[in-house]
Amino acid sequence: MTTADANDSLAWVRNRFSLPKGVIYLDANSLGPLPRSTAPRIATAVRQEWGDSLIGAWNDHDWINLPRRAARALGPLLGADSDDIAVADSTTVNLFKCLTAALRLRPDREVVVVEQDTFPTDAYVAAGVVDVLGRGHIVQRVPASDMADEISAAGARLAAVVLSHVDYRSGRRHDLAGVTAAAHAVGALTVWDLAHSAGVMPLHLERDGVDFAVGCGYKWLNGGPGAPSFLYVAQAHQEQFHPGLVGWMGHAEPFDFDSEYQPARGAARAMVGTPPILSLIGLIEGLASLDGVDLDTVRRKSVKLTESMMDLVDARLARYGFGLATPRDPECRGGQVSLVHPDAYAICQALIARGVIGDFRTPDILRFGLSPLFLRHSDIPAAIDVLHDIMATRAWDHPDFSTKAAVT
Amino acid sequence: MTTADANDSLAWVRNRFSLPKGVIYLDANSLGPLPRSTAPRIATAVRQEWGDSLIGAWNDHDWINLPRRAARALGPLLGADSDDIAVADSTTVNLFKCLTAALRLRPDREVVVVEQDTFPTDAYVAAGVVDVLGRGHIVQRVPASDMADEISAAGARLAAVVLSHVDYRSGRRHDLAGVTAAAHAVGALTVWDLAHSAGVMPLHLERDGVDFAVGCGYKWLNGGPGAPSFLYVAQAHQEQFHPGLVGWMGHAEPFDFDSEYQPARGAARAMVGTPPILSLIGLIEGLASLDGVDLDTVRRKSVKLTESMMDLVDARLARYGFGLATPRDPECRGGQVSLVHPDAYAICQALIARGVIGDFRTPDILRFGLSPLFLRHSDIPAAIDVLHDIMATRAWDHPDFSTKAAVT
Repeated sequence: MTTADANDSLAWVRNRFSLPKGVIYLDANSLGPLPRSTAPRIATAVRQEWGDSLIGAWNDHDWINLPRRAARALGPLLGADSDDIAVADSTTVNLFKCLTAALRLRPDREVVVVEQDTFPTDAYVAAGVVDVLGRGHIVQRVPASDMADEISAAGARLAAVVLSHVDYRSGRRHDLAGVTAAAHAVGALTVWDLAHSAGVMPLHLERDGVDFAVGCGYKWLNGGPGAPSFLYVAQAHQEQFHPGLVGWMGHAEPFDFDSEYQPARGAARAMVGTPPILSLIGLIEGLASLDGVDLDTVRRKSVKLTESMMDLVDARLARYGFGLATPRDPECRGGQVSLVHPDAYAICQALIARGVIGDFRTPDILRFGLSPLFLRHSDIPAAIDVLHDIMATRAWDHPDFSTKAAVT
Repeated sequence: MTTADANDSLAWVRNRFSLPKGVIYLDANSLGPLPRSTAPRIATAVRQEWGDSLIGAWNDHDWINLPRRAARALGPLLGADSDDIAVADSTTVNLFKCLTAALRLRPDREVVVVEQDTFPTDAYVAAGVVDVLGRGHIVQRVPASDMADEISAAGARLAAVVLSHVDYRSGRRHDLAGVTAAAHAVGALTVWDLAHSAGVMPLHLERDGVDFAVGCGYKWLNGGPGAPSFLYVAQAHQEQFHPGLVGWMGHAEPFDFDSEYQPARGAARAMVGTPPILSLIGLIEGLASLDGVDLDTVRRKSVKLTESMMDLVDARLARYGFGLATPRDPECRGGQVSLVHPDAYAICQALIARGVIGDFRTPDILRFGLSPLFLRHSDIPAAIDVLHDIMATRAWDHPDFSTKAAVT
C-alpha cells in the first residue's frame, strides 16, 4: 500500500461500493458505481413493499415521503436547506422549470446567456424555453472564459445565465460565487447545472446566493442509471416560482384532489408527477453512500487524484501527443481529467478492454472522472501504466477499437 | 371453481403475478400488482448490468433502447405504430408537452376545454400551459356529460380538448372516437389521458384519429410505482410537435452532442432527459404481463367483472345506502366500479383490514379497479361478502378506521 493510500481518511468508504474485480473505474461522472446497500434495498422494495403491501406501500413504507427524504440527504451536500430542494424528474426537465421561472421573474429583460460549449441539453432547454415563452428572448452563447465580461456587457438586458458549474467535457469549473455575484450585479438571475459537481466537492448554494440550481442523481451521487434529479430554488424566489410545468405532486395537498392548483410550500412546489419509486430508492441509497463523508476531505482527495493523473500524463505520455483539456489550477477544475487526442475514441476502447474504464466525448476527448469515494491513490498510476502500454505498443490501433458503438 | 372461472380463457394470466395470500386486490387502477418476472429482472439489472458492466451497460445491456422497446410493447395495446409512441417522464409532464404542442398548432384559437371533474393534475397542466404561453387562452371547465355540445358551441374558438378517457373517480368512459370526431369537426385537437384505460381495454388511437394521448405505466400496465409514462403523437403532427420542453434524449443523434437541437424522427422527439432505467425496466416487465393477452377478451371479462359487482351491490347492499357512480351501460364505463357512500373512507379502511383492497377517493367514493388479468370471477362475490358483513355488523364504525392516513 502506498503512503498516500495508508493515509487516506476516506479509504473506508470504498467498502460501501460493489466494484467488479480487475476494473479501475474512472467514469463516476457518467454513472456512479453500485453501492452495496442498493441491490438488497431495491429487492425489498420490489418484493415486500410493492409485492406484499401493494398500494398500501405509499403509506406503510412511506413512499410518499421518499422525495422529501432524498432532499434532506441532499441538503448538506448542496449547502442548502432541504426545504429549498426538490427531487423530481430529470435534470433537463428541472432545468426547464428553473429557467422558465427565472425568465418570468425578469419580464423586462431579453437576454439569456448560455455557454458556447455547454452540455447540449442545457442549450436545447434554453432555446425551448425561449420558444415556448414567445417573448422575443435572445439566447447568447458565450465562451466560458468570457463569462464575467459578457455578463457585464449584457447589463440590464440580461435576464438569466445558465451555466454548468463544471464542464462535462473539459472539467473546467466556474467560480460559482463570483459568477453569481456578477450576474446579481446587473440584476440578473443564475441557473446552475451541478451535474458534474454535486457530490464531489462541497457546495454552498445558500451562502453563495445561487438563485436556481439543478443536478443529476446518477453521476457523483451514485443513484443508478437515470436516477431522479434535484433542483434548488432560493427561498426568496419560491413564492414567485412559476415554471408553467406543474402537477399534483407539487400541490399543497395532493390527496385532497383539489380542482385548483395550490402550490406546496418551499421547493416542493416544483414536483410534478408521481415519482419513479424504484429509481428514487436507488438515489436514496446513492446519497447514503455519502452519509458521514466530509466533502472538504472528498475535495482534497479529488484534487490530489486529478493532480496525480495530470503529473503522470506529463511525465510519461508527453511523447504520444496528448493534450490536457482540464485546467491545471485546482480552483478552476472539478473532479475529472480530460485528455485530448486525435485517436481518443480508439484509445478509450483499448483502455476499457483492459479494465480501465473512462469515456470518450466527441470529437477527441478522453475523460476520466476520479471518484474520491472508492478510488485508491494507487489506482491512478496503475491506470496510467495501462494507458502507457497501450500507447507504446499502439494497441489502440486495432480494428476492434475503431468503430463507434451507439453509446460510449 | 365456478363455471365462469372454469370457462375463463384468461385464467392462465393470473400466474404471471405475485399476489399476497388472503388478499383480494381491487386496486389495479391505482397500482398494478407485481409481475413475477419483475423482481428477478430488476435484481439482474442492478447487480449484473449496473454493478458489473457499469457505464458499459448502456450498450452491453441495451439500456439506451429500453424506451424504444417499451414503445414497441405498447403499440398493440394502444392501436398505434410504435414510432408514434414515446416512453418518458411522468404522465403530467407528457401532458404538458402534448397540450403545449397542440395549442401551438392552433395559434388563432383561444379555448381549451377540460372536464370539470377531471383528475386534478390535468387541470393544473392546462392552467400551467396557458400561463406559460401567455397568449390569453381561456380554460373552459365543462361537465363530462355536456362534452359534445360544448365542443360544438366553442366551434372555431376551440383549440384543444383535454379529456380523461375513463374518469378516475366515477369510471365513466368517453366515446373516444366520437369526441375526437366532434373536436375535429370544429377544427380542434384532442389530448387524451389514457391513465385509466390503457391495458384494460383495446384502444385504436390511429384508427380513431386521436391527435395526442398520454398514459400511465403503473396502473393497468403493472409497471410498478411511478413507472414512466407514455405519450402518443399522431404522425401528422410530429413534424410540427413543438412542446417547448426538449432535451438531448429527443435529439436525432444524442451522442453527437450537437450544439443545435435536431429532433429525432417520430414521437421519440418527445423524449427529454435520461430515462430512470430501473423504473423503466419495471414498466417493460409490466408490459410483458400483457404479452399474448387478447385485449378484446380482457375487455369482455372486465365488463363481466364490473357487471357482476354492480349486480351484487344492487342485490345485497341496497339497504346500506350505497349509490353507484359508475355507468350501468358498459359502453360508458371502464374497468372500475365506484360506489358512493357518506362513510366511504371508513368502509374502505375496514375492507382493507380484511384483505379486500380498494381505495377511497375524496369525498365519498369507494373505488374498485377490477383487473381481468388476475382476478377470478369468484373474487367479486367473495369481496361483496366481506363488504356485506362490514355493513351488516357496522364494523366500519370503529375508531381505527376513522382517521385519514396521508395517502389512501
